[in-house]
Amino acid sequence: MNNMEKSAEATMKTPADQRTGLLRVPGFRAMGVAAGIKRDKTDVALIVSDRPASAAAVFTRNAFSAPPVRVSREHLAKGDIRAIVVNSGNANAATGQQGLDDAREMANLAAAELDLDPHQVLVSSTGLIGAPLPMDKIRNGIHACASRLDEGNGQEAAEAILTTDSGTKTAHRTIEVGDRTFHVAGMAKGSGMIHPNMATMLAFITTDVPVPQADLQVLTGDVVDHTFNMITVDGDESTNDMVGVLANGAEGGEPLAPATPEWEALRAGLTQVCRDLARMIAGDGEGATRLLEVHVEGAQNQEDARRAARAVVRSNLVKSALHGSDPNWGRIVAAVGSTRVPLDESNVRVSVSVADAIGEGDTQASPREDDEVVLFENGAPLGGDAPEKASLIMQKEAVRLNITLGTGPGAAEAWGCDLSEEYVRFNSAYST
Amino acid sequence: MNNMEKSAEATMKTPADQRTGLLRVPGFRAMGVAAGIKRDKTDVALIVSDRPASAAAVFTRNAFSAPPVRVSREHLAKGDIRAIVVNSGNANAATGQQGLDDAREMANLAAAELDLDPHQVLVSSTGLIGAPLPMDKIRNGIHACASRLDEGNGQEAAEAILTTDSGTKTAHRTIEVGDRTFHVAGMAKGSGMIHPNMATMLAFITTDVPVPQADLQVLTGDVVDHTFNMITVDGDESTNDMVGVLANGAEGGEPLAPATPEWEALRAGLTQVCRDLARMIAGDGEGATRLLEVHVEGAQNQEDARRAARAVVRSNLVKSALHGSDPNWGRIVAAVGSTRVPLDESNVRVSVSVADAIGEGDTQASPREDDEVVLFENGAPLGGDAPEKASLIMQKEAVRLNITLGTGPGAAEAWGCDLSEEYVRFNSAYST
Repeated sequence: MNNMEKSAEATMKTPADQRTGLLRVPGFRAMGVAAGIKRDKTDVALIVSDRPASAAAVFTRNAFSAPPVRVSREHLAKGDIRAIVVNSGNANAATGQQGLDDAREMANLAAAELDLDPHQVLVSSTGLIGAPLPMDKIRNGIHACASRLDEGNGQEAAEAILTTDSGTKTAHRTIEVGDRTFHVAGMAKGSGMIHPNMATMLAFITTDVPVPQADLQVLTGDVVDHTFNMITVDGDESTNDMVGVLANGAEGGEPLAPATPEWEALRAGLTQVCRDLARMIAGDGEGATRLLEVHVEGAQNQEDARRAARAVVRSNLVKSALHGSDPNWGRIVAAVGSTRVPLDESNVRVSVSVADAIGEGDTQASPREDDEVVLFENGAPLGGDAPEKASLIMQKEAVRLNITLGTGPGAAEAWGCDLSEEYVRFNSAYST
Repeated sequence: MNNMEKSAEATMKTPADQRTGLLRVPGFRAMGVAAGIKRDKTDVALIVSDRPASAAAVFTRNAFSAPPVRVSREHLAKGDIRAIVVNSGNANAATGQQGLDDAREMANLAAAELDLDPHQVLVSSTGLIGAPLPMDKIRNGIHACASRLDEGNGQEAAEAILTTDSGTKTAHRTIEVGDRTFHVAGMAKGSGMIHPNMATMLAFITTDVPVPQADLQVLTGDVVDHTFNMITVDGDESTNDMVGVLANGAEGGEPLAPATPEWEALRAGLTQVCRDLARMIAGDGEGATRLLEVHVEGAQNQEDARRAARAVVRSNLVKSALHGSDPNWGRIVAAVGSTRVPLDESNVRVSVSVADAIGEGDTQASPREDDEVVLFENGAPLGGDAPEKASLIMQKEAVRLNITLGTGPGAAEAWGCDLSEEYVRFNSAYST
């Protein structure tokens, strides 16, 4: 049985309106099962394109990269990716040669089930580190996933990649440009840390756009840089972080080329899906009670704006102040200043506003005027009822800080969360 | 009355064995008084050399530098510094032109009391930001300090610069080299943050070494880089940070020249005093229950070692784990890896040991063998009773992490503290 037939079958069994997440994109199947790596939770997932696909991926830049990351890098370099196999509950990190062998075996097992070559499979793991993968469970899990692939509605796979996330994270956009219609969908897991686990971030995106692999890689790197790379929960980067994109061209038209309207529409759609997922991850940071969104404008260039925005979302003082709904402009201004990006002190402006709900905000739009409160302007803080009004805004679930540096056109946004006692309690619990 | 006479007088009134801190160094006087900026606490201090002195200073690199920092920079450039005037309770930051006028006025007032030119005075402030200095209180305080300068035993000034520190921070070394004897002493304040205060770090060092000002500046920059610049409580750098050194040559011999044994002895003494103060600041971070000392060895070069060491002391995950005495090697390894410094994964080694008590450890000595527990070696974690034994060590007041990267001769140490629920409670308290 070839994969195209399987795909048709899947569509029949799972009507489009019941499919969620990745499966809103034609030509993909996905399934997740509970293989017993975690207790009573789904923990092995397969994502499969039923047609040849272009693939792109961005991996952790941590100098310690886990075996699955190393194997996926090798496979991606060969092109022609058709499937992603993922497990949670065990990160297969700091596991030495055995870990490398096990990661390759995961690809082999998935390939055998799906009638692919092993190098057509990307491998991803998240969870406990320093312990060998329970390969028997992995083997059974991959087999079960493959056997039940046609039953998948997208949700099982999105669940199977989670660790301590409070819920699944999925996003979807339909892109209409000229007479063509594309789909982009993604699922992600966030910054759950259970000792000796780390804050691994995984995201898998599918699209039916026809696009050459080299162009897709450039686009993916660029989009990840403005979305997933702008979130900070701990400031740390895990050994297993990975964002993978599969584009299977099921839409059927001519391949897109950079610098066309269709390409820019794809860029916008991919950015929106990744931005949604990134914001979900940031807002679901451990112990987090609210999302922090920081917009920096007026930097000399984009890189300066990025540095300033990241410094603010990373500042423990700002994060603690947000937890207490305290409009502490001093800490915000100091965090920006500590990056040493050029700024015009007399033109610096800081305001607080309500951030768009996740899935709502697709652009770096201006803050909503009716609930923006200026805290700092022309080099000095604003008094009156500004602090009190700002504090009310800072009690919302999604808080936006708007910072203008007054020196140029550079702009960027970054996301984080508040720092709570719960974060400390959770992460200081002795469990070695 | 000239200053030399005053000095002799002071020595008579305050016998050497009762003098503490800065006043262990011949030719200096210092006093602190309660001027009412803070409630019932000393808050204005003067530090005065009774003879011409060389001065050096390192200021915050925060793009927002407070008016006192700007005035001190100007004055230092003119050389011939004789005094430092400091207030706590108000940082004179984000105060615009008025703040600049007030900082100059502080120098003027001190100069008038001490019969100096205003440019011979460095100015430093710490405390509340965004509020104008209460100049009446400052004026009275400076006058009172100057009037009672001869009564000072060193402790009053060390108290007057504190904000939320749990106690005074002073250190002293006597340096004997050949037939010469020098003194180096210092006082510091740490990372107290009270809204809308910031984590300002101040340190003032005095020495009786005769040394040309240009050489002293180079030496000070270098020493600060390996001590104060290697501590992290929040990762933020305040608008008011300042380290000032006055060298008045009261020892009486020939000026020291770089690359002589005397010079290296001075470097060692100054490093030891600054290292003591830096460790006191780190261990007294807000809500901190223990000092974290990180030694990195085997990096390709010193800069890589510094980056790795700082990443570990800055990691919220490592800081939380330390709070729970959890020997979480995974977080340590991930923090190092996230800096992307080159490392040889199969040669990386992580151990935990008891850090020297403050004032004890003068060098980057090896960990004490009898209480070192290896957590990670040859790319893999060690099991057995290692985690349990390491956890016992991590319950001590000063914990040392030893990290070997296995690629070169680069070494560095850095200091921080654990992250506690108390830190979050304190810094999220709404008080605008």
